Amino acid sequence: MSTNARLRAWAYLSRVTESPCAELASLIADVGPEEAAQRIRRGEVGPELSRRTEGRRELDCAAEDLELLDRRGGRLLTADDGEWPVLSFISFGGAPVRDKPQGRAPLALWTIGPLRLDEVTQRAAAIVGTRAATAYGDHVAAELSAGLVEREVAVVSGGAYGIDGAAHRAALAADGVTVAVLAGGVDILYPAGHSALLHRISREGLLISEYPPGIRPARHRFLTRNRLVAALSSATVVVEAGLRSGAASTAAWARALGRVVCATPGPVTSTASVGCHALIRSGAELITRADDIVEIIGRAGEFADEQPHPNQPLDALTDTELQVYEALPGRGARTPDEIAVAAGLPSASVLGPLAMLEIAGLIERHDGRWRLARRSR
Amino acid sequence: MSTNARLRAWAYLSRVTESPCAELASLIADVGPEEAAQRIRRGEVGPELSRRTEGRRELDCAAEDLELLDRRGGRLLTADDGEWPVLSFISFGGAPVRDKPQGRAPLALWTIGPLRLDEVTQRAAAIVGTRAATAYGDHVAAELSAGLVEREVAVVSGGAYGIDGAAHRAALAADGVTVAVLAGGVDILYPAGHSALLHRISREGLLISEYPPGIRPARHRFLTRNRLVAALSSATVVVEAGLRSGAASTAAWARALGRVVCATPGPVTSTASVGCHALIRSGAELITRADDIVEIIGRAGEFADEQPHPNQPLDALTDTELQVYEALPGRGARTPDEIAVAAGLPSASVLGPLAMLEIAGLIERHDGRWRLARRSR
Repeated sequence: MSTNARLRAWAYLSRVTESPCAELASLIADVGPEEAAQRIRRGEVGPELSRRTEGRRELDCAAEDLELLDRRGGRLLTADDGEWPVLSFISFGGAPVRDKPQGRAPLALWTIGPLRLDEVTQRAAAIVGTRAATAYGDHVAAELSAGLVEREVAVVSGGAYGIDGAAHRAALAADGVTVAVLAGGVDILYPAGHSALLHRISREGLLISEYPPGIRPARHRFLTRNRLVAALSSATVVVEAGLRSGAASTAAWARALGRVVCATPGPVTSTASVGCHALIRSGAELITRADDIVEIIGRAGEFADEQPHPNQPLDALTDTELQVYEALPGRGARTPDEIAVAAGLPSASVLGPLAMLEIAGLIERHDGRWRLARRSR
Repeated sequence: MSTNARLRAWAYLSRVTESPCAELASLIADVGPEEAAQRIRRGEVGPELSRRTEGRRELDCAAEDLELLDRRGGRLLTADDGEWPVLSFISFGGAPVRDKPQGRAPLALWTIGPLRLDEVTQRAAAIVGTRAATAYGDHVAAELSAGLVEREVAVVSGGAYGIDGAAHRAALAADGVTVAVLAGGVDILYPAGHSALLHRISREGLLISEYPPGIRPARHRFLTRNRLVAALSSATVVVEAGLRSGAASTAAWARALGRVVCATPGPVTSTASVGCHALIRSGAELITRADDIVEIIGRAGEFADEQPHPNQPLDALTDTELQVYEALPGRGARTPDEIAVAAGLPSASVLGPLAMLEIAGLIERHDGRWRLARRSR
């Protein structure tokens, strides 16, 4: 197999379904990208994947896509690359994420820019917010962004008007690293009014999309894109947002993915801050300056250095079992009462799930306390 | 005993020490105000109370004070009055409050105004904040205050420039009830620039002080006054405040007294909102409009209707015993682990205190769980 053939297979697969697609991901995991591509071309796949690929399976512009990308100095990143970031799309508290198709990792990332994605994501924060930003919001986004890049934190955003644009621009102005995640192909510089900004990001930072060239941004792609913004960042900071905004969706993804959600407060008289205040009420960190974010990212980093919670096949668990399982610490043991408190469940209702988890070999009892089974730690 | 003699005794006692004074309160509780006044006049009191009263014990201007108050349409409220509000100065989580002399209830309240204090405090919120308010802060204080009185919540504040003044003024403008708690005598309308405002409050609302006429406001009296503002209100709302402001002290009192602490966010670029953001971070409710406060007061009222935590002679308990005792619910039972979590103590350290509390007859064990002893419930 030549690398080129394999990369072309990835490029073909990236277009053949709407990303992300669980069935496709699992076929690739089983047989590799080239065999997966051939089976799809021949229609030799299960009914669901067949349905999802029938519209595009005969369309193969992989070579042209890769050529276009190459001409612009870009590259197609896949799980084959060392640069592929470890995106924990299936988070610790993963149930809500796993239930949504968009919760899956992207198949591949079409990128343009001089930076390595794995290095960027080691220390990155998203700054997002409403397109209808006020002067206050623009100012705060720019201040936070400049402060972050000064402390060598990359600023991730969605390239949109308003807060996103202010964040990207301030990062570039301070010679910092900024990443724009697009909801369409990397050759579609959307919105048009930001084409110069996005072009500059593609030369100095990173332009990223999970969609192949030529794909137009669409509503559902913005939502899918939002989860990528959240996933690439240790923390997502919402600077200004209405109640039902795209930024609120990014924040929800960040929370679902186990990232830290932050919001900056604003005047209570400003509708542009209503979403931020709602986020803070529901547990988002109130941040007022870049140092707050840096500190939070630092804390998150320390947590990440600790014993990670093991990835186990937890799909067979009931919701309550999953809650109980996740209430067990990565190290050490807990009494049933402590587990109940941590899981937010009545004491009486954790004993059954604990027994089932023990039977499943996921946890073990010792001295009246429960801990993760040794092999899962 | 004539009522007048008893009231004169209260007036004398109100001036003879700096309020509040634990030793004086306990002498009055033992022998009543008239006997207490006579013993103090004759110097027949313990060394500590003797020391605290020696400077003023020969000064008796009770008759003149009461006459002055009467001329202004005021009255001296004491525990003798039906109007005396039930001020829970010794709160549920009371240790920190009891440890501070200012944590005690006032001995008496010098008041001017047409309203009954007990009725006012049934539904009251404090709006407080910096004297150096911004236009934004003035606006928000006024909006909240007008919204509160529209929903028949009395607005309590300290009569100061800035946020306090904006809150009082808006309440009066909306024909609502407002209460100003002063740090000096009710005849000293301080600050001078607010004398017209305070005078109007004395005609339409309530002017309150625990200091007798003629006493000048002083730094320590402002701090003592702040706890009275907090105590008279179900919730304290800080609208704008620096980090170490009087409003932050009122908020700290509110928390110590088991009241709800609220704060309004503001621009992160405004130093006048720094204290509010710090409060929200440390657990204050983020509120943006009067309805938020009304809802919180409603909830607090519902809590108040629940089984109250019994008042027991707890002075003999150690701090840890008190913590453990207070971690027990008003109803129902808890395991030692749950108590440890609720008390914020290591599991191992609650067993000793539980045993001591059982010996003291304050709690009882049932089925491995602990609950308040029946007679104390």
